[in-house]
Amino acid sequence: MGHDSKQISVLGLGAMGAAITRAWLAAGYDTTVWNRTASRAEPLVAEGAKAAATAAEAVAASGLVIVCLLDDASVGEALADAGLAGKDLVNITTGTPGEARERAGWAAGRGARYLDGGMMAVPPMIGVPESGAYVFYSGSRESFAEHHDALSVPASARYVGEDAGSAALHDVALLSGMTGMFAGMAHAFALMRGATSPSGFAPLLVEWLTAMAGAADGMAAHLESGDYTLGVASNLAMMVQGNRTLLRTAEEQGVSPELLAPLMALMERRLADGHPDEGTTGVVDLLATSGRGR
Amino acid sequence: MGHDSKQISVLGLGAMGAAITRAWLAAGYDTTVWNRTASRAEPLVAEGAKAAATAAEAVAASGLVIVCLLDDASVGEALADAGLAGKDLVNITTGTPGEARERAGWAAGRGARYLDGGMMAVPPMIGVPESGAYVFYSGSRESFAEHHDALSVPASARYVGEDAGSAALHDVALLSGMTGMFAGMAHAFALMRGATSPSGFAPLLVEWLTAMAGAADGMAAHLESGDYTLGVASNLAMMVQGNRTLLRTAEEQGVSPELLAPLMALMERRLADGHPDEGTTGVVDLLATSGRGR
Repeated sequence: MGHDSKQISVLGLGAMGAAITRAWLAAGYDTTVWNRTASRAEPLVAEGAKAAATAAEAVAASGLVIVCLLDDASVGEALADAGLAGKDLVNITTGTPGEARERAGWAAGRGARYLDGGMMAVPPMIGVPESGAYVFYSGSRESFAEHHDALSVPASARYVGEDAGSAALHDVALLSGMTGMFAGMAHAFALMRGATSPSGFAPLLVEWLTAMAGAADGMAAHLESGDYTLGVASNLAMMVQGNRTLLRTAEEQGVSPELLAPLMALMERRLADGHPDEGTTGVVDLLATSGRGR
Repeated sequence: MGHDSKQISVLGLGAMGAAITRAWLAAGYDTTVWNRTASRAEPLVAEGAKAAATAAEAVAASGLVIVCLLDDASVGEALADAGLAGKDLVNITTGTPGEARERAGWAAGRGARYLDGGMMAVPPMIGVPESGAYVFYSGSRESFAEHHDALSVPASARYVGEDAGSAALHDVALLSGMTGMFAGMAHAFALMRGATSPSGFAPLLVEWLTAMAGAADGMAAHLESGDYTLGVASNLAMMVQGNRTLLRTAEEQGVSPELLAPLMALMERRLADGHPDEGTTGVVDLLATSGRGR
């Protein structure tokens, strides 16, 4: 299965599929493409790709097969009739860790080695090394090692373990962290509205969030040691007190507290449970649904 | 009123008041201190501070008076009998923008110039320039200019306008942004629990949040232009779709979605309002309580 063949097939030509195809074309790969709506292949064919008439034909064309479809169900559908034996199947379709594990078993049953990918990038970042884009990969360690060069063409490749679900889990965890950060940003801009220019405030917010992102290292140390008071400079008792000022300010400024209220409620619950000297790490425990209502 | 007198009074010797007092003592300031519970002054007196028997006596001792008490009510109480005429009153007590504005008017009525301060630091960062600690100041521009050197001793000093409420507003907006980021971190660590070592995951989270913090610049550009689609690579339609994967993953991992759900609901509402091509900036509009239910 030619790790230096520079042959690759890409199934799925949405914005991301098209972007990674262009990266491989630019790197001189013999690239075969397939998309359910065939017209999406046309501009890529004009740039040097070969269009396959069916997904099975695209799979047959290369040992290394990249799948970038709408969702996991689309993957099963597109590959239903494909001959996967001896192939390296790399699935960067967005999905959950559980879906990735099931798809890995499904691929193994058809004789393919499987890698699941989680893209930490948007299409404009693909093929632009300085964008910082990367892809988490998990699953077959051998497949990753053999195809490391090819997989590193669209964006740098980071292997996160043999559990096929690990890439999706890392991906979703980072996106979830970002979602929380975006909620905080939206609240911050809403507070400042009318008081100062957004572009004057944004650099302060970026600088502050960047400085405070390091709190994740403290949370990790807490979770590993089980001692959630380690190195805490601003403790839960102080933070819960401070939250009152945050809420009163939101009210003064006419801003709904709905994005911050759930964390504040969990901080109060942890404080009420008798942990005034901790930081916020105890909230991680409270999020486990299996431990609710204890 | 001696801008080079190096005389200063500090009222309130909690963890922060004691830390800033030590910074001024270390810088050679003739420092008078007062605290409601007098024993808290003792260690500082041993380090060279003068203890005042009353708040009024502390105010009388210096032209520059720093107040760092529990809350705004404590400030009014402590200073009720103090002779404020001709003083520069610098209030770094935690409070809301509205409280700062009222306190500024109150101080003006007593003949004092007023600065309000918002500390972007915890006590261990005080007097440690490399900590990145700083203080927002707002209110009397003249007072800030005259006392810039003294005010820069505990942490660097950033003036954000003559509106006395501006420092507190900046402070609370940044802390609110951080609160959202901490919610995202807690959710991310909860997802990863048992899957990988927290200390292995933390650097990835720090790197990702640091890279994504720049999204604040995009939000600012949206808010200033009124065009929330400018430069959007991952649009609301894609993000709302992606949120489903985030929620399904949380369910698989046994993690409550409560910290992320409110933002997701507002994103869906903005999408339903007909803005598929925007980023998340429209959420800022939805947070304005005066615009609710339109």
